[in-house]
Amino acid sequence: MSIKLADYLFTRLRQLGIRSIFGVPGDYNLHLLDFVEPSGLAWVGTCNELNAAYAADGYARINGLSALVTTFGVGELSAINGIAGAYAEKAPIIHIVGTPARTTQDSRALVHHTLADGEFRRFAHMASHVTVAQVDLKDPRLVPDQVDWALREAIIHSRPVYLEVPDDMVDVHVNASNLTSMICIPPAPVTGDEPVVLDRILERMHTAKRPLILVDGESRPMKVLGDIDKLVKTTGWPTWTTIFGKSLVNEQLLNVYGVYAGSLSDAQWKNYFDSADLIINMGPHYSDTNSQNFTTIPDPAVTITFSNTYIQIDNDIYRGTHPSNILPQLLEAIDTSRIPRVTGPAKSTKEAGQLNSFDSITQKDFYSIVNSMIREDDLVLTETGTAAHGGRDMILPQNTRLLGPATWLSIGYMLPATVGAELAQRERTNNPDSRAILFIGDGSLQMTVQEISTMIRENLNVIIIVINNEGYTIERAIHGRKQSYNDIAPWSHAQALSFFGADDRHAMQSYFSARTWGELDVVLRDKRIQAGTGVRMVEVFMGREDVQGALLRLMANQIADE
Amino acid sequence: MSIKLADYLFTRLRQLGIRSIFGVPGDYNLHLLDFVEPSGLAWVGTCNELNAAYAADGYARINGLSALVTTFGVGELSAINGIAGAYAEKAPIIHIVGTPARTTQDSRALVHHTLADGEFRRFAHMASHVTVAQVDLKDPRLVPDQVDWALREAIIHSRPVYLEVPDDMVDVHVNASNLTSMICIPPAPVTGDEPVVLDRILERMHTAKRPLILVDGESRPMKVLGDIDKLVKTTGWPTWTTIFGKSLVNEQLLNVYGVYAGSLSDAQWKNYFDSADLIINMGPHYSDTNSQNFTTIPDPAVTITFSNTYIQIDNDIYRGTHPSNILPQLLEAIDTSRIPRVTGPAKSTKEAGQLNSFDSITQKDFYSIVNSMIREDDLVLTETGTAAHGGRDMILPQNTRLLGPATWLSIGYMLPATVGAELAQRERTNNPDSRAILFIGDGSLQMTVQEISTMIRENLNVIIIVINNEGYTIERAIHGRKQSYNDIAPWSHAQALSFFGADDRHAMQSYFSARTWGELDVVLRDKRIQAGTGVRMVEVFMGREDVQGALLRLMANQIADE
Repeated sequence: MSIKLADYLFTRLRQLGIRSIFGVPGDYNLHLLDFVEPSGLAWVGTCNELNAAYAADGYARINGLSALVTTFGVGELSAINGIAGAYAEKAPIIHIVGTPARTTQDSRALVHHTLADGEFRRFAHMASHVTVAQVDLKDPRLVPDQVDWALREAIIHSRPVYLEVPDDMVDVHVNASNLTSMICIPPAPVTGDEPVVLDRILERMHTAKRPLILVDGESRPMKVLGDIDKLVKTTGWPTWTTIFGKSLVNEQLLNVYGVYAGSLSDAQWKNYFDSADLIINMGPHYSDTNSQNFTTIPDPAVTITFSNTYIQIDNDIYRGTHPSNILPQLLEAIDTSRIPRVTGPAKSTKEAGQLNSFDSITQKDFYSIVNSMIREDDLVLTETGTAAHGGRDMILPQNTRLLGPATWLSIGYMLPATVGAELAQRERTNNPDSRAILFIGDGSLQMTVQEISTMIRENLNVIIIVINNEGYTIERAIHGRKQSYNDIAPWSHAQALSFFGADDRHAMQSYFSARTWGELDVVLRDKRIQAGTGVRMVEVFMGREDVQGALLRLMANQIADE
Repeated sequence: MSIKLADYLFTRLRQLGIRSIFGVPGDYNLHLLDFVEPSGLAWVGTCNELNAAYAADGYARINGLSALVTTFGVGELSAINGIAGAYAEKAPIIHIVGTPARTTQDSRALVHHTLADGEFRRFAHMASHVTVAQVDLKDPRLVPDQVDWALREAIIHSRPVYLEVPDDMVDVHVNASNLTSMICIPPAPVTGDEPVVLDRILERMHTAKRPLILVDGESRPMKVLGDIDKLVKTTGWPTWTTIFGKSLVNEQLLNVYGVYAGSLSDAQWKNYFDSADLIINMGPHYSDTNSQNFTTIPDPAVTITFSNTYIQIDNDIYRGTHPSNILPQLLEAIDTSRIPRVTGPAKSTKEAGQLNSFDSITQKDFYSIVNSMIREDDLVLTETGTAAHGGRDMILPQNTRLLGPATWLSIGYMLPATVGAELAQRERTNNPDSRAILFIGDGSLQMTVQEISTMIRENLNVIIIVINNEGYTIERAIHGRKQSYNDIAPWSHAQALSFFGADDRHAMQSYFSARTWGELDVVLRDKRIQAGTGVRMVEVFMGREDVQGALLRLMANQIADE
């Protein structure tokens, strides 16, 4: 039994739960695109390839896997920054590149979308730095296993892979027999260390006096969120997340505290952390930006770490022992009567100050005010910059996912990521009322603004909250507070929806702005915000140098240095 | 005598005639950006890094050299597709990347804008595929020579180079003594072959019966346009350009015919070409898209080729012999009395058909109509797609430069390139009335539309002619004529100027649209188009499948195949 290559590939993607593919047409991928919709996948064309990669990244974080189609050279290189971000923060994107026909490549013809030097392997070399597997589907005998291998790499590492499809291979027949069995991820082999590991963990858990659970962002790609939820509930232990781990546990639970920020956190929290005798550390991701400049990384001497490739107890690393072999057994084996009941520190009681209706909106209180608009099942996306800093302190309803920046921090990412994430959410929940709320600064918005038109075309329910502070305020806090290079050209955001294709009536009714707390209150109560559909925009004006949290200290240093 | 690294670098750029630098701030380049304006350079922040690279490419093609500043990882990778295009089509961009401090890199710290794996060299490896030189400015003793070497590489190859500036190196002192002499490009060594080469060329020129001159696009980076102009005038020989060579000779001369397109050209032209006994081939660039799928490449048996790295006479290649050592001597040595006077074929007399005011605008006649609006010293930019195909047939006034796609063909390029090219033109001519006319399809526009705001902020005089044919018409001609993947989301272009920050009055008066020849005529006569300033937009509606020239055949094949 045989099947055309493109059908093989897209069937596999469907089997793995992908329903929409992102990308941009180009002459080396057009034949391939003919096969997308017949295979039951939706084609979501974006305005450019970087935005497509960002959208695919957002989709992967919600759906678990995504796909992107670009064209050789121009398309794939436009997307490569998005692929690198997906690598850094573990979003598995199947990046499919339509390449010139084999004859063209073999003859080293000087075709367009090359450097006109007969060299066709450059872009694959570049991709190898930011993907975990690369396959060039140029021999029909190898194709099925190549595709399956690459997909498995993407799933296991939760990182992007790179597939080249020469234009003349699209409808070449390949063996279809693999398709009768789903791609399954082999269970991690049992190393024999498991009983030891399990005993050591249990012993530590039973004897702890000041235990805590820390949920970091790689818990998502490890696919252990269900087990973590049970652990948090079973133990009742004080639980924090990192920045990257935000929203991966139910923040409504009494023992869940929010994002731990070291010396920037509540003093009691820090005290509890510093004196903990057991930290259960799930899915660690140790970048400077995810660890308050490395200050919140748990002390190994008191820590049990569950990572995708090892378990660490104190200083002993069990490299072959996979959390998926331990966590279910652990949950089974925990003797709740022996688990210490501990009372953590007081929960944070950051309340908005007394806000005067006529006062300007400030970063310090903004996020606790808008927190009220977030409801169960929402997606919340906070772009790099003041928005991401602010979003960390919001307390989310259960089943609310927040996507924020962790390490790659490529500004412009979050708007197209909203397209992908919200589409995945709508598909996954089968709920047409599914909704996303995007917080984004005016500088970031300019990077990728055109994907508002994709939101509109796909009828996504998105509230875009644009923080207008006249430029790159986060950069002002870091350096160049008064420098003009941190300014941007001013835009008239009120026109955005109508420019990007919303019908006049919707566009007119869907732009809101607020400069004061009173104005913001009116907007948040508006029924088009509360219960409306489609894309809405709220422009919130804040000061050029207004920051809070960690950024406050940076800005103060700037001022002190001047 | 010593000088801070940043001052050294920016002084060199100033010395080489760069006046504006493009880029986007990011935390690893902020210290570096502090030095831009004090050095006398203008900072032109764009909305994102790909657009900055495109702008720098446009600037380099007019100014001869340009500079781009991005930040490590996220910024440089966003720009890399633009750098690759500059490599393919020979635009020398000095790409300066602000990188993490040396201590950070040496300690392999897991900082943001990395893949959080301690590896800091990946992006430089990637850049090495699309730049001719790479330097990491991390040792003060080496910096001056590294900078000078990289700049020379950029200038000689007319291609991008890659400079890393660690954040802590910005104000480190380096030896300033190099600065007392300008960077000069060493003359090509004399090989001894020159007299032979010169004699052979002269002999061929004196004995030719049906000679012609073909000017290709690499004549620009070879910096021999002045000599070519003399050769074309001295000989009076029939002269054509390639697609890439368009506008590099004065199209108003009687012996200059336009773009040679092989079998798609006038039959008499093709006949002359095919029977030529001498083709002087300047600055060849042999890509499929620049040679009508390799059909217009001159027969070596009758050709003398001047390339940047060799001269070829028939099948003999003089590799070390540089055109700059031959062309001036040749022009001196030509005995005009012995140069054959030839009469070339008739000039093309493509005239617009009888156009009815109420008829829809069509590709076939559009370009000859808008040809009338182009005036001396204009820049004309034609984006990949139907615009580029149409632009080839326009006859330009003298001193009018046209930038069109040759090989890289990355759609979205031309709008930001207009920002850079027009800025360079304004600086170069010192003429505030300097003007650019951009022809761009609605699909390409969506890729990089936000740079309209940079045009507005920089007060550039640009007329943007948007060809609205509801999607990627060039792709429809290639494949998928009726496929929805070639559609785009519809935008309301009338709002563009006001959305991107033009003041209300200007915005209202500066949008025009035309669906018929009559409407187009009114627009072209409007004094705001004829003599206005600032950014203006003309939206021209054409059929979804309306194409002309080479694309016509492709579209016909599509229809035949269905």
